[in-house]
Amino acid sequence: MNGLKILRDEIDKLDQDMVEIFEKRIEKVLKIAEYKAENNEPILNENREKEVILKNISRLKNKEYSNYVEELFNTILSISKKIQDKQLNTDTDS
Amino acid sequence: MNGLKILRDEIDKLDQDMVEIFEKRIEKVLKIAEYKAENNEPILNENREKEVILKNISRLKNKEYSNYVEELFNTILSISKKIQDKQLNTDTDS
Repeated sequence: MNGLKILRDEIDKLDQDMVEIFEKRIEKVLKIAEYKAENNEPILNENREKEVILKNISRLKNKEYSNYVEELFNTILSISKKIQDKQLNTDTDS
Repeated sequence: MNGLKILRDEIDKLDQDMVEIFEKRIEKVLKIAEYKAENNEPILNENREKEVILKNISRLKNKEYSNYVEELFNTILSISKKIQDKQLNTDTDS
């Protein structure tokens, strides 16, 4: 098997773990949306978002990747807001 | 501890795992960039990108999250191309 195939198989395994974690994260976000609805808390919490990004940058071994982690978590946070919006609108529709 | 704090702590743990996996993925991408440089292979491989997205959507338990996984991996693939570009330009500069 050539080097590229081996590396891609290793990436596929990492991606599989990432999807599993991401799916769990979505389910936690749905629970947070429920909690916020029950407690009249706003979806958007910019302080929490900044905290999530800084905390995850700090977890990097190689700080050269900081911009990449920031970009990744900006996407994750944006997806989380979509999920919470969708959940709240579904609740108010039903 | 209130419900929101508990859920956020659980998300923080998931994020920690995600950063660890993402960092490992970046290192694999750097090795792929080296391999491609040595073997004159192009960075962009649209078939591989489509395969990565479809493969990861197929791993979801809940297919309602397909758009979110697609968005996540579009970001990851975009970051991977930036990493490979940077590596190749650094090689050619040195």
